[in-house]
Amino acid sequence: ALIAILAGDGIGPEVTREARRVLEALDLGHTFETALIGGTAYRATSHPLPPETLALAKRADAILFGAVGDPEMDGLERALRPEQAILGLRKSLGLFANLRPAKLFPGLEDASAMRPEIARAIDMVIVRELTGDVYFGDKGRGITNKGLREGHDMMRYDEVEVARIARVGFEMAQRRKRIITSVDKANVLETSQLWREVVNEIALDYPEVKLTHMYVDNAAMQLVRNPGAFDVIVTGNLFGDILSDQASMCVGSIGMLPSASLNQWQGTCGLYEPIHGSAPDIAGQGKANPCAAILSAALLLRHSLADDASALRIEAAVIAAIGGGARTPDLGGTLSTAAMGDAVLAALA
Amino acid sequence: ALIAILAGDGIGPEVTREARRVLEALDLGHTFETALIGGTAYRATSHPLPPETLALAKRADAILFGAVGDPEMDGLERALRPEQAILGLRKSLGLFANLRPAKLFPGLEDASAMRPEIARAIDMVIVRELTGDVYFGDKGRGITNKGLREGHDMMRYDEVEVARIARVGFEMAQRRKRIITSVDKANVLETSQLWREVVNEIALDYPEVKLTHMYVDNAAMQLVRNPGAFDVIVTGNLFGDILSDQASMCVGSIGMLPSASLNQWQGTCGLYEPIHGSAPDIAGQGKANPCAAILSAALLLRHSLADDASALRIEAAVIAAIGGGARTPDLGGTLSTAAMGDAVLAALA
Ligand SMILES: CC(C)[C@H](C(=O)O)[C@@H](O)C(=O)O
Ligand SMILES: CC(C)[C@H](C(=O)O)[C@@H](O)C(=O)O
Repeated sequence: ALIAILAGDGIGPEVTREARRVLEALDLGHTFETALIGGTAYRATSHPLPPETLALAKRADAILFGAVGDPEMDGLERALRPEQAILGLRKSLGLFANLRPAKLFPGLEDASAMRPEIARAIDMVIVRELTGDVYFGDKGRGITNKGLREGHDMMRYDEVEVARIARVGFEMAQRRKRIITSVDKANVLETSQLWREVVNEIALDYPEVKLTHMYVDNAAMQLVRNPGAFDVIVTGNLFGDILSDQASMCVGSIGMLPSASLNQWQGTCGLYEPIHGSAPDIAGQGKANPCAAILSAALLLRHSLADDASALRIEAAVIAAIGGGARTPDLGGTLSTAAMGDAVLAALA
Repeated sequence: ALIAILAGDGIGPEVTREARRVLEALDLGHTFETALIGGTAYRATSHPLPPETLALAKRADAILFGAVGDPEMDGLERALRPEQAILGLRKSLGLFANLRPAKLFPGLEDASAMRPEIARAIDMVIVRELTGDVYFGDKGRGITNKGLREGHDMMRYDEVEVARIARVGFEMAQRRKRIITSVDKANVLETSQLWREVVNEIALDYPEVKLTHMYVDNAAMQLVRNPGAFDVIVTGNLFGDILSDQASMCVGSIGMLPSASLNQWQGTCGLYEPIHGSAPDIAGQGKANPCAAILSAALLLRHSLADDASALRIEAAVIAAIGGGARTPDLGGTLSTAAMGDAVLAALA
């Protein structure tokens, strides 16, 4: 199969290199093609998502993505900023379902700011809608009739957008503990009232799954108080962005967590990325933890290439490397990115 | 002075009763008037914010507020729901500045899910904009041209709205550690780009304050990783709703935290409320912690009645009661709401 590698900005190239080494070591016969994306692509081509890159993404069987984002480009107009590349990819490929597991890796109890007994209990998947909400509504800057500068972004969902992500959540819940929490702000937002209404409708098809609705402010609180009580969380694009980052930090390091973005439940078109982002402060220093990228490669094999066996091998190798004491600086250790990659490769062998 | 007491729904009346007892015990010569609000008001008058209540709120020198919210009213149209009462009060009185301190009370290290050394370092104030953003933009439900149900809410700020809350944040920062974090999602939202631009402009008037911009997803993460690094956070209505609840849970119990909503920096018109909300699951059982309401009364004396001495007395009494081992169930104890009120009153004497 053809795997597109879009390494992007900041620590993206460093961590993606290790993920590719792991995939190559498995010798599965896949081919790799790379393309520029994000600030890196803008520097070379004046566009963060060049047509060649989009074409490769569409042609590939799956996409391994690094990160985009570059503070030097904060001044650019929105359409040219690095982040537009990932937003554009998600929208163009219809990747509406973002799956973000958060689970403590054995041995990493000490890396979490939560009490160990709280951190150990965490094992959830956040199912985040990824192609709608205030991210993609009409937006702009203007002048009010009082002559004031203003900025606006429309938050919006329609019933089809809510229904399909709700289904992904319920399917996931059915394969896990059969409980799901839908997060919204229905006491204030009309968008959330539609969300809640449609989620309740989809729930009728899954009578064996217990559904709870929770306001987003309360969810942020419960994720501190008792994160182990959550199993599947389904929510919109903006709330999912915030809550999934919060949840992932609860398990110690955001450097350990992969994500999958899919265009249908158990479809094969997918983009796989570590959730940590470009981390410009440590870029180019060999300090980044490549585990999230390596685990993203495992998700790629599982979801897009129907190769669960290889995915499990990679995941076992990461667990073994961590269990053997391999630690990058984010985990309190001193290993370089490449040395952490070596540790995973050694465990794989 | 005239203090309006709007106890509201759920545990609102129980906790407000204790706060009033504390105010009365100080014998400061203030008068109290009560009025109905929220679901309680809707049941009696068919409106969550009856005209008499709004009139009292406007006439009073300060408002002591309990909580609104009632799950039995989830089916009502938005304009009649209990939450509209507090949103309506904030808007009618122009209470654009919501101050939410989050600080660990000595002795409550064990109540937090964070590691004790992390929890002990927390001492921040979240300055949340309270009368704009997606809360108050055009909103509604409709049918798309494909015949689908939709829901929408406009997120919007103008420069005046951002400038005045930014000033509150900087004034606060100047009186504390001279660092401020402005939280937005400027990599995606135009509203946030305006926010960032205006905050940068206001920052020019406060050269001695160090300003950092942070994306909201990263802020949610850093609040887990190292909450002690924050001092003043200034942010919009929606992000402030989420982050302040997250931060307050980091210090153990949301039952300990008061808030002030003001219509100008060091103005006197203000509404004071515990941040915990109506907590319908424990309402009427005498289990609620009244400390947040009692501490809200202290903020009322300080900000609206220029009586810092009495505010400090109340705060010292709460600290002494907690220090003496008084604990409601949310803090791992067995005291009833009234018994906790007694403990504070005893410490006051
Ligand atoms: C880079 C940014 C646009 C993106 C988002 O907000 O979706 C990132 O935070 C993420 O969560 O993947
Ligand atoms: C009750 C609700 C409308 C309110 C809000 O979202 O502002 C509450 O959560 C708060 O934070 O005071």
